Amino acid sequence: MTDTRTETDSIGAIEVPAAAYWGAQTERSIENFPFPPSERMPIGIVHALAIVKQAAARVNRAHGLDATLADAIEAAAGEVIAGKLDDQFPLVIWQTGSGTQSNMNANEVIAGRANEALTGKRGGKSPVHPNDHVNKGQSSNDSFPTALHVAAVVALNRDLLPALDRLAGSLEAKARDWADIVKIGRTHLQDATPLTLGQEFSGYVAQLRDAYRRLRSAEGDLLRLAQGGTAVGTGLNAAPGFAEAVAAEIAAITGHAFVTAPNKFEALASNDPLVQLSGTLNTLAVALTKIANDIRLLGSGPRSGLGEIDLPANEPGSSIMPGKVNPTQCEMLTMVAAQVMGNHLSVTVGGMQGHLELNVFKPLIGAAVLRSIDLLAIGMTSFATRCVDGIEPNRARIGELVERSLMLVTALAPEIGYDNAAKIAKHAHGEGLTLREAGLALGLVDEATFDRLVRPETMVG
Amino acid sequence: MTDTRTETDSIGAIEVPAAAYWGAQTERSIENFPFPPSERMPIGIVHALAIVKQAAARVNRAHGLDATLADAIEAAAGEVIAGKLDDQFPLVIWQTGSGTQSNMNANEVIAGRANEALTGKRGGKSPVHPNDHVNKGQSSNDSFPTALHVAAVVALNRDLLPALDRLAGSLEAKARDWADIVKIGRTHLQDATPLTLGQEFSGYVAQLRDAYRRLRSAEGDLLRLAQGGTAVGTGLNAAPGFAEAVAAEIAAITGHAFVTAPNKFEALASNDPLVQLSGTLNTLAVALTKIANDIRLLGSGPRSGLGEIDLPANEPGSSIMPGKVNPTQCEMLTMVAAQVMGNHLSVTVGGMQGHLELNVFKPLIGAAVLRSIDLLAIGMTSFATRCVDGIEPNRARIGELVERSLMLVTALAPEIGYDNAAKIAKHAHGEGLTLREAGLALGLVDEATFDRLVRPETMVG
Amino acid sequence: MTDTRTETDSIGAIEVPAAAYWGAQTERSIENFPFPPSERMPIGIVHALAIVKQAAARVNRAHGLDATLADAIEAAAGEVIAGKLDDQFPLVIWQTGSGTQSNMNANEVIAGRANEALTGKRGGKSPVHPNDHVNKGQSSNDSFPTALHVAAVVALNRDLLPALDRLAGSLEAKARDWADIVKIGRTHLQDATPLTLGQEFSGYVAQLRDAYRRLRSAEGDLLRLAQGGTAVGTGLNAAPGFAEAVAAEIAAITGHAFVTAPNKFEALASNDPLVQLSGTLNTLAVALTKIANDIRLLGSGPRSGLGEIDLPANEPGSSIMPGKVNPTQCEMLTMVAAQVMGNHLSVTVGGMQGHLELNVFKPLIGAAVLRSIDLLAIGMTSFATRCVDGIEPNRARIGELVERSLMLVTALAPEIGYDNAAKIAKHAHGEGLTLREAGLALGLVDEATFDRLVRPETMVG
Amino acid sequence: MTDTRTETDSIGAIEVPAAAYWGAQTERSIENFPFPPSERMPIGIVHALAIVKQAAARVNRAHGLDATLADAIEAAAGEVIAGKLDDQFPLVIWQTGSGTQSNMNANEVIAGRANEALTGKRGGKSPVHPNDHVNKGQSSNDSFPTALHVAAVVALNRDLLPALDRLAGSLEAKARDWADIVKIGRTHLQDATPLTLGQEFSGYVAQLRDAYRRLRSAEGDLLRLAQGGTAVGTGLNAAPGFAEAVAAEIAAITGHAFVTAPNKFEALASNDPLVQLSGTLNTLAVALTKIANDIRLLGSGPRSGLGEIDLPANEPGSSIMPGKVNPTQCEMLTMVAAQVMGNHLSVTVGGMQGHLELNVFKPLIGAAVLRSIDLLAIGMTSFATRCVDGIEPNRARIGELVERSLMLVTALAPEIGYDNAAKIAKHAHGEGLTLREAGLALGLVDEATFDRLVRPETMVG
Repeated sequence: MTDTRTETDSIGAIEVPAAAYWGAQTERSIENFPFPPSERMPIGIVHALAIVKQAAARVNRAHGLDATLADAIEAAAGEVIAGKLDDQFPLVIWQTGSGTQSNMNANEVIAGRANEALTGKRGGKSPVHPNDHVNKGQSSNDSFPTALHVAAVVALNRDLLPALDRLAGSLEAKARDWADIVKIGRTHLQDATPLTLGQEFSGYVAQLRDAYRRLRSAEGDLLRLAQGGTAVGTGLNAAPGFAEAVAAEIAAITGHAFVTAPNKFEALASNDPLVQLSGTLNTLAVALTKIANDIRLLGSGPRSGLGEIDLPANEPGSSIMPGKVNPTQCEMLTMVAAQVMGNHLSVTVGGMQGHLELNVFKPLIGAAVLRSIDLLAIGMTSFATRCVDGIEPNRARIGELVERSLMLVTALAPEIGYDNAAKIAKHAHGEGLTLREAGLALGLVDEATFDRLVRPETMVG
Repeated sequence: MTDTRTETDSIGAIEVPAAAYWGAQTERSIENFPFPPSERMPIGIVHALAIVKQAAARVNRAHGLDATLADAIEAAAGEVIAGKLDDQFPLVIWQTGSGTQSNMNANEVIAGRANEALTGKRGGKSPVHPNDHVNKGQSSNDSFPTALHVAAVVALNRDLLPALDRLAGSLEAKARDWADIVKIGRTHLQDATPLTLGQEFSGYVAQLRDAYRRLRSAEGDLLRLAQGGTAVGTGLNAAPGFAEAVAAEIAAITGHAFVTAPNKFEALASNDPLVQLSGTLNTLAVALTKIANDIRLLGSGPRSGLGEIDLPANEPGSSIMPGKVNPTQCEMLTMVAAQVMGNHLSVTVGGMQGHLELNVFKPLIGAAVLRSIDLLAIGMTSFATRCVDGIEPNRARIGELVERSLMLVTALAPEIGYDNAAKIAKHAHGEGLTLREAGLALGLVDEATFDRLVRPETMVG
Repeated sequence: MTDTRTETDSIGAIEVPAAAYWGAQTERSIENFPFPPSERMPIGIVHALAIVKQAAARVNRAHGLDATLADAIEAAAGEVIAGKLDDQFPLVIWQTGSGTQSNMNANEVIAGRANEALTGKRGGKSPVHPNDHVNKGQSSNDSFPTALHVAAVVALNRDLLPALDRLAGSLEAKARDWADIVKIGRTHLQDATPLTLGQEFSGYVAQLRDAYRRLRSAEGDLLRLAQGGTAVGTGLNAAPGFAEAVAAEIAAITGHAFVTAPNKFEALASNDPLVQLSGTLNTLAVALTKIANDIRLLGSGPRSGLGEIDLPANEPGSSIMPGKVNPTQCEMLTMVAAQVMGNHLSVTVGGMQGHLELNVFKPLIGAAVLRSIDLLAIGMTSFATRCVDGIEPNRARIGELVERSLMLVTALAPEIGYDNAAKIAKHAHGEGLTLREAGLALGLVDEATFDRLVRPETMVG
Repeated sequence: MTDTRTETDSIGAIEVPAAAYWGAQTERSIENFPFPPSERMPIGIVHALAIVKQAAARVNRAHGLDATLADAIEAAAGEVIAGKLDDQFPLVIWQTGSGTQSNMNANEVIAGRANEALTGKRGGKSPVHPNDHVNKGQSSNDSFPTALHVAAVVALNRDLLPALDRLAGSLEAKARDWADIVKIGRTHLQDATPLTLGQEFSGYVAQLRDAYRRLRSAEGDLLRLAQGGTAVGTGLNAAPGFAEAVAAEIAAITGHAFVTAPNKFEALASNDPLVQLSGTLNTLAVALTKIANDIRLLGSGPRSGLGEIDLPANEPGSSIMPGKVNPTQCEMLTMVAAQVMGNHLSVTVGGMQGHLELNVFKPLIGAAVLRSIDLLAIGMTSFATRCVDGIEPNRARIGELVERSLMLVTALAPEIGYDNAAKIAKHAHGEGLTLREAGLALGLVDEATFDRLVRPETMVG
């Protein structure tokens, strides 16, 4: 009794599950790389490979591929794109460094599904052959990096940039709402001159708007596709104009402005555009860490911290301390950021290696970048929704702190000089006085001058 | 019609799936951290939390916890340890940084299962309460880091160290088998004096045996458990001797020599032992990259590379180039190593943060370390089995290369001096001669001396 | 007998060397941070601080600063910019995280030199006061990050971009010269289909031209200056329009298109533009590692490596092996790249920290970025001059390797199918035949077809 | 008129400064790697190379090296070790990756000095030849990694470990002095149950004592020396027993327990022991970041921060804000830590590369490790002396905060249950009550029970 069928490749014959659409090479990869399902190639890459196959089938038809076969390939690829065959892609990230096995997984499943449509028999290589027809005019060496670029651009536009915009918008609303709340500034974690709470949050908005712009810039290089380079960049076995035509079809399918890469040798042998994207995600992670840490700090307390803002209480915070509430969204976001920084290092280490005509760290690089995008997108949306949107300023506490600050003395410096102003601050600190009391006691400023200059509300620009 | 039931916590009431064992806090975490299932907390940490709960129940019984409740907790924890309730742990890595929610997930599921056993009704807080009974004498702040240590020690001993030993053994067998194959050495990727193929591989063995020893050393600090520190390290609400007793129970359950940490404040506020373990995994990743890169390079060809060894042909290597075979196991292993290096950075960034009494990057740190262990363990086993074991030396090629090397001239230097020997090498290289021809032509050495000294087989020590 | 004079600050009096121009705060920093001279703040940052001071003096004169004082400040700052007072800047990187001490070093030296010019007495605070006059309208919190941006933009334009262009040009000349040298391609370090040596090098050129463009993009954010934000970003104590006017002066002094930053809170509290620059340097380091590694590999030998190119012999390579020559410029460049990657991590770790209104990792960040720029600039110029320019192709070796390659079989696949082509390659490999012999022996291709299709020179696009 | 002399190597003749002791190969390196003096090879490595040469001369004399030459070499090496010839070592880190040029610099300077002593004529190769005599039985490939190990062990024992001990001792004194100061605990930066200030600092002590132990463990592998492996690990051209004898001499010279490495192939081809040391320095950097960040946070204020401790006021903190004092030693130390983390990445990237018989990233690795050691040693000593030693607790503030904490409610939980205790905390927080008021108001606890259980001084273990 058996539920397998026999498939073959250049190594020989091998049994595959009868229900599977895939063929011999997918099966070998399953056996050769026994990692758990949690390590599977991100589905975004699988879908992007199918986009490549669909686009290639259209172009190949124009260059003589039998229309029946081309139609069947296009239809089967469409099913993969639509997510209907996700369970037919069992391969993991940790396989051959070119992604050949995932490319063959796509070739085999599309061929296997097309053959089923055409003959009623699932799988196999006839009439649609995985290499000769589905992979026609292609190599893994150009298809796989093309799929990485497509998957990254799709994820950027669908997931990351909207989430970034959402978070920036949420912070911007707060910056606007709190434009008039004058608070103590802190530099070196020490009391400094005042600013408004809105100004403080406007800095976060600026960080994120800049990050958005940088990501758009990094996206530019990803719009250039390796497809058409085939095995080593020369385009051997691809029809004339194949590169340009496929890029145009991919642009049509996805709605993003893909073009063919100007130098295919670079496009196969390096992954610099993905390294640069990763570096730009790293900068975003840096910004998010700063923002989430600030919000955590401003919300510290409730009675022994800074306590200038109140964060939403989403859940009980402690299994032992009753009633405790913690800044859990900040914690999630800073952990996500740390993972993104780590992934950036993995991408860097992968990107710097690879010899001669092919970088063979592509699955690692693609998977790390896509995971970073995914974590950041979900993390930022959640942080905006479940934390930032619900923050409330603690006006009483804010007012109390700004009033007693010693650094308001700075406003006196242009009039009485830095050195005299410093004497007042030291005297107030040492004796536990207000600045006003100290200034008058030392005779370094008169009442009228003090009251005219030392007004927090006029010190915020 | 409903398939939910109502559970409560200090925030209020919430609906949970009727079939679930978990309670309100788990449900809130599901809603508050909407990451996909691929981001779930590693199951090894879940099992380790259940080990903590089982051990604590035993100790709490000795300190007055009702025996019926204690038995029910112990039994339910046992089911979690055995993997029977894995689907009851839906929480993701990206949650609160203390792991409180995963700790509560464990408390709730164990209480919910115990209550079902005792009353026939799944879930709830009675008679077994997740906090008052399952979590008795504990805090997430000591339970979660304890679970991370337990999970890491288990994974090290069950998965990583055996795999490392397997790979070292595989390389050692080759080093032994090839002890007499004299080959050209290469330094700076340039021809150098000869050594044997066995000697070359013995270096890899030494790297891995040292890595094994270092991991054992890093394991030492992981055997020290935070349990007993409760909320901030003082042990508030834990019975006297609780810390020592729980560590002894955990040692009994796991078979590893766990003890209580000498300083609980350090054990909660820092994760240095895991950072050090991660650094040691990083060193292993460095070693594996070197080894896999060398093997890839020695096996390059088949006709235009170094070609000194033949790697097993596990699968077709190219979708476009028929008959191509690639060093895919080397590619997998070096990609895995790059991910481990990235994870190490994430662990470093997590470990350096966290304020005052608690580091709140624990889920990130634990998950990254466990993923690194898992990837390395599977990767090394696969590399040993599917690559190293099957390597064959290409004796003809090796012999040909060693014979024509110019660096054999080094053997002459002690006799004729470095400067004269250099002249011979340069002359041979420039004129395309053998060393012997060049030496004699320049009159810098006589035939007998040359033939006595320049013998590769006596130059290998 | 004494060679000191007494200077004072708000802490009190302190002795400074009589010959020094600096004052009390510089002296305190020397004592408080006893690192060796090799750890000094990069001189580029010192010069940039002086540019800020000169620009500020001009603007402050327009806002009422006494013209005599303003002129003296401008002149003294000019001497610092010209490098005449470099020995007056003894402070190290590892000081306060705001760079306040280096800012005060500049304020004090400029005041001390101006006072000398005006009174004949070196140092002191009168008539020119370091804080009230030289630092007028400024804070370290805006001056120091302004100086970092200025220093980075200057170093980019003066050092890095020309060096990058030089190296790209050198590689481009080779790509052009070698456009017709057909050689074996290698993917996965295994023989693949052919390309030209010129095509191979054209990929490197493309990597570097893209890196150049990315650096120009990263430069954009650096042209936005923090100056005018003063203590916390509000601009307290700066005259109206000060920010815009200083940026314009700095642009005039340097010839670069500096403008005032749109959000000063971001400009003080974050260093994201430098983090992004660092990430872009990291991408360049990745590209250089790939290029240098390839060149090292192609030049490996002379008799037991790939040997397709000959690298210049710049020096003896071995203290023990006479006549050995090594790819030392490749080694230097890949080591430099590794340091740049490490610096990028330091910048990332610095950039993610810092609380609220000020990031206090600025000296670390600035020094790491400037060192990376310096190392890369010198390294690329040296690599171009002493390695790439002198590379010679080894045409005989290249021709020999391409002829015997099995992967030329790829050209047959479109005609006879992937599976048949694979059979020919395997047969040739197994039996040690040429492809032609194997194809004919298997009857899978006829002579005419083979000779028409399998021609390396037509396979390179 | 000339102040040069002519020296030669296998490349040819070259002019060197007449005053220099070095020869042709040093001069070539100066010209080929034009980096500034700040990039010079750390002097600790130079001294260590001289230790190797001195030890080798002793052993070579026993194996037949002419005693006059051996004595002259030993004496000249002694001058280098003593630092008398530091200016004769102009080479930079960024040279050949084997360190051959620095090894030849040592060989040439020692020969040049020995020749001067023997003949009155500086430099040259006679009677003492740099390769045939000074380098006798050695290769750069074993001498340079030996020097790296020696330099690291010396720096560890002379600089780093004493500084670490100093800082741990300083913190330990505070932990002891403050054993009875009960303060609020904070987890997640939110108020938690109390502990003593001494307990809090005891955690830091534990982190550092563990770091000390880990460094000692990492030192173990560094005590194993490559010397005796010569060119590729086989020991070609070294006398029998040379490896063991040189290690014993180096042990005698340095007073550290050096032995010969058990596998010389590993000792040349990998730098894993230095990677592991770097990883251990990284763990220390993580610990120091945590400690310095905590101290900065506890000392924040003076009026709007946590303010539980007062840090020493070492210098004025602001150029614009008079009287401001900042935690500058914390800032220095956390910047140093960030650089150490970056250096660790550089070491990792260097360690993972290098092909076959030699890792050629040795100067990078050695220089990065030594810089990390140096920065940490100076940084920790300064932090202990100028910050920790002078910290004073702010008892009034500490007392005030602990009294009003809501998390004291935790002490009630074992008696009244977690859920009821949570109600009290929420009620107190919402209504601005004390816990006592809230508990009584809700009727969930009586006065006697409350007063018995909720006593901070009994909650600290």
